[in-house]
Amino acid sequence: MTVQTALSLIAAENAAAVRALTTDQSTGLDDAARQIRDAKQVFLLGAGRSGIALQFTAMRFMHLGLTVHVVGEVTAPAIGDGDALVVASGSGSTAGIVRAAQTAVDVGASVVAITADASSDVAKLATVTILVEAARKLDRDSTVSAQYAGGLFEQTVVTIGDALFHSLWQQSGLSADDLWPRHSNLE
Amino acid sequence: MTVQTALSLIAAENAAAVRALTTDQSTGLDDAARQIRDAKQVFLLGAGRSGIALQFTAMRFMHLGLTVHVVGEVTAPAIGDGDALVVASGSGSTAGIVRAAQTAVDVGASVVAITADASSDVAKLATVTILVEAARKLDRDSTVSAQYAGGLFEQTVVTIGDALFHSLWQQSGLSADDLWPRHSNLE
Amino acid sequence: MTVQTALSLIAAENAAAVRALTTDQSTGLDDAARQIRDAKQVFLLGAGRSGIALQFTAMRFMHLGLTVHVVGEVTAPAIGDGDALVVASGSGSTAGIVRAAQTAVDVGASVVAITADASSDVAKLATVTILVEAARKLDRDSTVSAQYAGGLFEQTVVTIGDALFHSLWQQSGLSADDLWPRHSNLE
Amino acid sequence: MTVQTALSLIAAENAAAVRALTTDQSTGLDDAARQIRDAKQVFLLGAGRSGIALQFTAMRFMHLGLTVHVVGEVTAPAIGDGDALVVASGSGSTAGIVRAAQTAVDVGASVVAITADASSDVAKLATVTILVEAARKLDRDSTVSAQYAGGLFEQTVVTIGDALFHSLWQQSGLSADDLWPRHSNLE
Repeated sequence: MTVQTALSLIAAENAAAVRALTTDQSTGLDDAARQIRDAKQVFLLGAGRSGIALQFTAMRFMHLGLTVHVVGEVTAPAIGDGDALVVASGSGSTAGIVRAAQTAVDVGASVVAITADASSDVAKLATVTILVEAARKLDRDSTVSAQYAGGLFEQTVVTIGDALFHSLWQQSGLSADDLWPRHSNLE
Repeated sequence: MTVQTALSLIAAENAAAVRALTTDQSTGLDDAARQIRDAKQVFLLGAGRSGIALQFTAMRFMHLGLTVHVVGEVTAPAIGDGDALVVASGSGSTAGIVRAAQTAVDVGASVVAITADASSDVAKLATVTILVEAARKLDRDSTVSAQYAGGLFEQTVVTIGDALFHSLWQQSGLSADDLWPRHSNLE
Repeated sequence: MTVQTALSLIAAENAAAVRALTTDQSTGLDDAARQIRDAKQVFLLGAGRSGIALQFTAMRFMHLGLTVHVVGEVTAPAIGDGDALVVASGSGSTAGIVRAAQTAVDVGASVVAITADASSDVAKLATVTILVEAARKLDRDSTVSAQYAGGLFEQTVVTIGDALFHSLWQQSGLSADDLWPRHSNLE
Repeated sequence: MTVQTALSLIAAENAAAVRALTTDQSTGLDDAARQIRDAKQVFLLGAGRSGIALQFTAMRFMHLGLTVHVVGEVTAPAIGDGDALVVASGSGSTAGIVRAAQTAVDVGASVVAITADASSDVAKLATVTILVEAARKLDRDSTVSAQYAGGLFEQTVVTIGDALFHSLWQQSGLSADDLWPRHSNLE
């Protein structure tokens, strides 16, 4: 398969995943944006590529002026009451993610869960669930996607994160020039 | 703007960016895939969110069995003859990226550049350039995108990286079950 | 307390910790060095500051020409037969570290454990244990150290890592000029 | 050389380096502690192993309740007026470190420089310089240390960082039980 063919395949899968999210009225997307905006501090956690996708999001939340921590960074403190935890887990059952969501609930933080399984442990613990139906597993080994493993889910996490940012940015009334001075100036 | 509207906006921009890449016959995409596949070691480097996008790609290249290093990881050694450097820079003029590309050329490594500017320093140094026309800057402050800063470019780097992987995977003849045992088993 | 007084306190604790390691003839230090030198790939894992200490070590092992992975890096593959896992855990009972050590044993890799508790789960799983007696806990809340939490243990991990490197380097017959070209040339 | 002999060598070099710091009355150590304690936000930056050493320090500053960012983390914002930048550079002339120190000065932040060269660019820009004389280079290729490259300097940065923490902690009147709840509870 050429790279161009692969690009077309991925783009079609992404378009379908976003279409499902934008036609379903119960996605929790705007609820999620509010939880993030109103939190004292926002923590983000995912395993493997889901975690990398949330780093992509974390940087933009920082540009927006939020206090943001990626779990695993040496400077990330404990989560507490009034904070929000954003997790991404396709299966919704990754052990470390479930434990973190339980901790967040226990201390009084809200949990925003991006998952492909509405009945998973992470979804059950979540204050708001963003359900990525298009990336659900059909059976043990395959999803509706032709891509390897959780590729479609992880790409959709990237898109959802940037949509959460874009919506919050537009609502903030801030211009691009207002955000720019927050970019790291020491690298 | 609601998150659903933002999702639609981002999806439309991404679709257009991919469409431009898939209709242009001189994108260098398959050349890039060959350079990566045939390199002794693959190094990836980008600043800010472009760098995060390439981490997304790096993990998949590792799953494919390539020897991969993200520049900045404590375990990343020096690049040398026969290696490949993949860089992503919207402007193509980020100082640290240009220096790294020059070093790669000097030591006999190939350079795959993902950029929005075909006449940039990085593009001039590159063995293969993947041009993301849709994310080019119209003037100092704006691109064809309604998104903040380099958002569209960075999302397209994510998609290109996964398309390079998908194409190389399909060509490899390996099954998903062949790749799975390479996933980290210590986390 | 002035910083100078704190420096003296830390230096005295470190000197005592090293003295204990250098007078005990059953420390496993040279065994550990051999396991690392002869491994196909070396993986390093610690939680919190113990993990940072092992990153310090990992970079030097790379300079020495070993194939090295810090667990959690996006490019770290699965551990396998003939590899070595180096873990640092003061208590020797950190859940994720114990699981990783068990995995390493299961796949046929050796385990080098740096710990303050010789009877811990990690020590029991280890091929070689480097015991940092000076940093053992006296009871639930305190160690023989006046420093906060695992400070003395973590500093000793830094020193042990550099001593493992220095010993392997001297035995390798390589000069500083032989190692230098391996340093990252892309940053 | 056995690992035990290497341990003794490293311990002796570290003890000498600390002795030099604790007998010199003009080290700037307590000034540095004050700059860090009184800053709105603390940023830390070093290249290679000096940067890893400062991550070690950064985690403790977070435990102490300071707002801390490691330069390069995706969540690190811009430095500004009233912040402090802590840099570590043996030569004091690493280009990226000098640029960052200049930026810090330009925006009204203080600069704490740990370096082995009192006449270096970084030292000249610094508000406070902590001079690690014992690790100065004798000529282009060697230091007073028998260790590889900047090993002694980097180990001393670890010790200085923990001494800055220990001094600030003792002065804060906080107990270990006060600090503990700040440790990451999501990993």
